[in-house]
Amino acid sequence: MMNKLLSILQEYAENNRFPGTPAELYEPCAYILTLGGKRIRPALLLMAYQLFRDDVEKALPAAWAVELFHNFSLIHDDIMDAAPLRRGQPTVHTKWNATTGILSGDVMLIYAYRHLAKAGRPEVVAHLLNTFNRVATEVCEGQQLDVNFETRNNVSISEYIRMIELKTSVLLGGALEMGALCAEAGAEDVAHLYQFGRNAGIAFQIQDDLLDTYGDPEKFGKQVGGDILQNKKTLLVLKALEVANEQDRAALTQWMQTPETEGKVEAVRALFDKNSIPELIEIEKQHFQETAFKHLDDVSVPETRKAMLRQVVADLLGREA
Amino acid sequence: MMNKLLSILQEYAENNRFPGTPAELYEPCAYILTLGGKRIRPALLLMAYQLFRDDVEKALPAAWAVELFHNFSLIHDDIMDAAPLRRGQPTVHTKWNATTGILSGDVMLIYAYRHLAKAGRPEVVAHLLNTFNRVATEVCEGQQLDVNFETRNNVSISEYIRMIELKTSVLLGGALEMGALCAEAGAEDVAHLYQFGRNAGIAFQIQDDLLDTYGDPEKFGKQVGGDILQNKKTLLVLKALEVANEQDRAALTQWMQTPETEGKVEAVRALFDKNSIPELIEIEKQHFQETAFKHLDDVSVPETRKAMLRQVVADLLGREA
Repeated sequence: MMNKLLSILQEYAENNRFPGTPAELYEPCAYILTLGGKRIRPALLLMAYQLFRDDVEKALPAAWAVELFHNFSLIHDDIMDAAPLRRGQPTVHTKWNATTGILSGDVMLIYAYRHLAKAGRPEVVAHLLNTFNRVATEVCEGQQLDVNFETRNNVSISEYIRMIELKTSVLLGGALEMGALCAEAGAEDVAHLYQFGRNAGIAFQIQDDLLDTYGDPEKFGKQVGGDILQNKKTLLVLKALEVANEQDRAALTQWMQTPETEGKVEAVRALFDKNSIPELIEIEKQHFQETAFKHLDDVSVPETRKAMLRQVVADLLGREA
Repeated sequence: MMNKLLSILQEYAENNRFPGTPAELYEPCAYILTLGGKRIRPALLLMAYQLFRDDVEKALPAAWAVELFHNFSLIHDDIMDAAPLRRGQPTVHTKWNATTGILSGDVMLIYAYRHLAKAGRPEVVAHLLNTFNRVATEVCEGQQLDVNFETRNNVSISEYIRMIELKTSVLLGGALEMGALCAEAGAEDVAHLYQFGRNAGIAFQIQDDLLDTYGDPEKFGKQVGGDILQNKKTLLVLKALEVANEQDRAALTQWMQTPETEGKVEAVRALFDKNSIPELIEIEKQHFQETAFKHLDDVSVPETRKAMLRQVVADLLGREA
């Protein structure tokens, strides 16, 4: 079912390729889209639409707008983070240069709005535009907070969660909200779907921090322990700095100023274990995912229509549907 | 009259300031808007609206959207051009850094769409969105062509004019078109106003190239001869390479590879004079400005309503109204 959705989305993308010229502008847009993301945001939008209506092809322009927005943000974030690779392939500014990354990102954002403009009757487009603009603004604010946090040493857990909420989770919520808006669902259902996505998104990001240190190396796509080696101020670190005794805090702070050393990952993980950090973080995650699914429960359509959306999000969060 | 329009626009801007936080994101947006541009694009939009209707405040959100778009493009272009100054003040990426320039530019573009979303009934917003998206795409394409031309030695005059058309003129046309759309003018008037702005914009850019070399140092804001010193491939250079004999072409090509030297501006200007370049360029300019004013003539409102718009654009082009 999910594959069916992704295949009609792909068909829409192929029928709506970027222009051929100027090639220097549009090739990077086509390139980033081939790097094999999971297309989770447009899939969520289409599944939200299908809660209410069967003619899912009507929601494709809005779904593609959300995917283009996401990819625009990847291109620009990769420049800001000076990231050489994305999914094992060169980032746009590495394969070309920063000028190309800036300008191709810009035009990709504008193309997101071009698809949005085709997403329904003028009244529907007006609603979609409001949601999209609100979420797009918040994503920029979240990226700014992330940039700010790199040079701050006093980030609180609630500030961190607010940052991941803005940077990534509101777009998941926004995608679900837009699917409901395309279907012209009622205002309460629209709001519940937004909250479902926003809370599930926060839970997902918390899980991402957890898996980076505690994931199964066989299943986890990246190097387990990467965040520790890069001294990232993840939720695990912030929680440990909050709950650990002075000695453990000092040891962790020391490790965070140490370059990659043999035994570093194990030592930091031992500090986390001693302070029950994985359990404490799991509780945070549970809180957001339970809130998320309560909102899905409250959407006023029969349970049978929710089955796919419920399963897909449960799978993402590694829990039973 | 024009001052009246600029003052109500300023009032709208002050009532619609950027949020206070994150300050790192929004301060650069406020900063670039204080650098004292002429606000010509929103003024054109408001004047186009006033051809048809008197309640000009209705057109303010669209006018401000166009001004924000223009300023977004300045921030990003300045990064791409590595420009240290704009209007004698540090550019955003110089005062802050490239990351700030990218992200603040992004959010400024999104804010342009936020104002656009408030610019009228859903049907009107839908039309505005189509025009804005089309023009915004073309501005990115024009910037890409400008980037490409820097490393090309075989740019034709028609390619150059197409570049300035996309990079700057379509936005003037788009502003006028959007003013007419806000007023719900007929399709023919909308099209004539776009062509008026597009052609006047090309004439203005041609004049800009001409004034850089032949302007009155007392009136011209920048250093006269700056383009020559920077070896810019302006329309004057392209025209000279097209019409001059082999010896003059060789001399010009030689100068274009010479760093700033005493007598360089005078020598290149003498080559231009000998080949009647200013007269030939003036003919190009006349062609576009005559086409422009024919389109204004064809707008189906009484001549009295056109007086201000006609005067303002004539002044910009240094001709009688």
